[in-house]
Amino acid sequence: VTSRPPSLARAAIVAVGSELLTPLRVDTNSLFITEQLNGLGIDVVCKAVVGDDRAELAHQIRYARARAELVVLCGGLGPTDDDVTREVVADVTGRALLEDASITERLRARFAARFSGEMPAINRRQAMVPQGATVIENTAGSAPGLLMEDASGVVLLLPGPPRELKPMLRALVAGALHDRASGSPVTRRVVRIAGRIESQAEEMLQPLYRAWADAMPPITATILAALGQIELHLSARGATTGSAAACLQSAVNDVIRVFGTDAFSVDGRALEQVVGDLLSAAGLTIGVAESCTGGLITSRLTDVAGSSKYVERSIVSYSNSAKTELLGVPAELIAAHGAVSEPVALAMADGIRSRARVDVGVGVTGIAGPGGGSPEKPVGTVAIAAVTVGETRSRVFRFLGERELVKFQASQAALDMVRRMLIG
Amino acid sequence: VTSRPPSLARAAIVAVGSELLTPLRVDTNSLFITEQLNGLGIDVVCKAVVGDDRAELAHQIRYARARAELVVLCGGLGPTDDDVTREVVADVTGRALLEDASITERLRARFAARFSGEMPAINRRQAMVPQGATVIENTAGSAPGLLMEDASGVVLLLPGPPRELKPMLRALVAGALHDRASGSPVTRRVVRIAGRIESQAEEMLQPLYRAWADAMPPITATILAALGQIELHLSARGATTGSAAACLQSAVNDVIRVFGTDAFSVDGRALEQVVGDLLSAAGLTIGVAESCTGGLITSRLTDVAGSSKYVERSIVSYSNSAKTELLGVPAELIAAHGAVSEPVALAMADGIRSRARVDVGVGVTGIAGPGGGSPEKPVGTVAIAAVTVGETRSRVFRFLGERELVKFQASQAALDMVRRMLIG
Repeated sequence: VTSRPPSLARAAIVAVGSELLTPLRVDTNSLFITEQLNGLGIDVVCKAVVGDDRAELAHQIRYARARAELVVLCGGLGPTDDDVTREVVADVTGRALLEDASITERLRARFAARFSGEMPAINRRQAMVPQGATVIENTAGSAPGLLMEDASGVVLLLPGPPRELKPMLRALVAGALHDRASGSPVTRRVVRIAGRIESQAEEMLQPLYRAWADAMPPITATILAALGQIELHLSARGATTGSAAACLQSAVNDVIRVFGTDAFSVDGRALEQVVGDLLSAAGLTIGVAESCTGGLITSRLTDVAGSSKYVERSIVSYSNSAKTELLGVPAELIAAHGAVSEPVALAMADGIRSRARVDVGVGVTGIAGPGGGSPEKPVGTVAIAAVTVGETRSRVFRFLGERELVKFQASQAALDMVRRMLIG
Repeated sequence: VTSRPPSLARAAIVAVGSELLTPLRVDTNSLFITEQLNGLGIDVVCKAVVGDDRAELAHQIRYARARAELVVLCGGLGPTDDDVTREVVADVTGRALLEDASITERLRARFAARFSGEMPAINRRQAMVPQGATVIENTAGSAPGLLMEDASGVVLLLPGPPRELKPMLRALVAGALHDRASGSPVTRRVVRIAGRIESQAEEMLQPLYRAWADAMPPITATILAALGQIELHLSARGATTGSAAACLQSAVNDVIRVFGTDAFSVDGRALEQVVGDLLSAAGLTIGVAESCTGGLITSRLTDVAGSSKYVERSIVSYSNSAKTELLGVPAELIAAHGAVSEPVALAMADGIRSRARVDVGVGVTGIAGPGGGSPEKPVGTVAIAAVTVGETRSRVFRFLGERELVKFQASQAALDMVRRMLIG
């Protein structure tokens, strides 16, 4: 019964929630939404954040509708009085707000199954639907999404929690939004680089940037550097995803030519996934003896689904006696070189490898700070070793930054050492 | 010559830059700006991000001026053609754009001193000033800030790089903005709550919300719930920060009265810090036997500076044989109950406690997914146990969400079990 909406070329994103107007929280959903919409050739022309305030939200929605054919609202679909998105959208689009009995039923069933209890009365607000809206199922939470269309465009309401929003938007991008999009899609590739600092990487990339700007379609490159990792984001817009993809592949090849094995991922995989895939492919197992990283390396390895195939056990040996008792590091070695030293890291790697009977042993010992540094071994000093049959690698690193950054960089360096060992 | 602007109570922030409309970069300047403005009693009522596009930017500025007396624009003050903020603001406020010779001089001197060279011709664009604007010195970069006022309010232009923007805004908050602000400053507190889901917490908080709304000064509460943690943000606006702080302390006391020991932090500390402080205060040590969490619990414990006082060692026993060999979990126990079971979690906690000779032992075993679930023990099933002298706790949890979320919630539940045991 609704008029056919225009095809979608421009989008405006409105994040709703008073907490997003405090100094505490930043809207990050819009990054994922932008990525998904760009993939359909839809440009994001503006983003806004507005509090749980009916008047402000109504103004923002009207403004967004004037700027773009697609307005994506996220947040404010919870069960409480603060959550006003449904009501304001109904108001602005001139629709009645009606209870959808099938949603109420689903909510009741959800509460009975998950929390063994009755649905609180306030959750009924989540079953209210603007007349004529399409209800979008939320498999990860209680608030369903809503999609409305009329002659001036499409308004999409999604819940704020990312784990709820993401699968819902992915499904829409494959379905309803795909059918209504009009632009040429933006295709992206990410190359991850280890062992280089940003200014080095920039210098190496300068000649490539110039060539890419003249490519057809032209390639846009953005470098995002954090401590311990450089990401190069490449994008191209093509009439077909195939033409853009071919152009990007040749740019990826350029990067590999310049960076060699420092370019560790060209397909979105994180370092722990790359290492896990190498271990899987070779049928090898790994054990980690962690001191300053405190379990972070093994936690990252086990973030990968299926890692139980190659992660068998790890030891967090925070004290010297734990290093000696659990890993067989001689107390004299620690006394002679200090706990933070290459010989101790090597003995830890050897110890976990032989005692756990795994193929690859890793040892990490360092000073995460803020205390514990000395002029000779300042905070950020970390010794890392990796051992496998017939091969041993080790190195002392000096990382910058606070405690958690030192831990992260040490985990990154250890995983990268294993990666380089496995690719020979 | 300008009309006196209204006193400043409401602000709108506009971040300018096409890179902020890609999936790669998020505007974080607005968090700092909000904190500074709130300290003057100025509320941020909306935030927007717009690309380097004259028409869009003009629309956004007009919209922002209609919503708030203070409009803060950041970014788009560079020397290139892309940088259009100065020109669009001059346009929208009906001012001529004139070169300020003293800025040109400073720019020339800066280039001579820093880069031993002539100022590129394009940098002259940075000396263009809307007629009547106050120029704000930038000690960390080339783009000066600009402040304009008229009868409808104040427009402030600041450069995008945080290290340039921050000192400039701090100086304005101590000076020009301080004199024009009309509100009372906002003071904040955060209470963190464990063991409750959002809708339960909301129901318990309803009577408090009503009382707080009537308090003098009234207290605003925002609940931020993620899987495994609920944060309650309280803020009050007082003529003096002292009166607001006293009012917030009484609200914090209300929360503690309602939630009891579920309220685990009232001073910004994370759960791992609270647990660490309890261990420190009691002079106790801890060891963790981790299976599905893969080292995450120990990594979180060791994120806290000084944790080597109470973290001695931990075991990641991913395989059954690791549980038996390293923790003494009987193979028959695993065969009888399954690796994911309360008896095995208890045996792991007992094993790490006795073998590591620590005061508190923790055992965690579960199914993080996506594989490995069964109808009886679906993905997300996690058994957790904590053991200390004379006391044993254990429970089987069912967590929702993907692998990393199951890991996080399990780590949160384990730390919380230890916390409750330590406070008796």
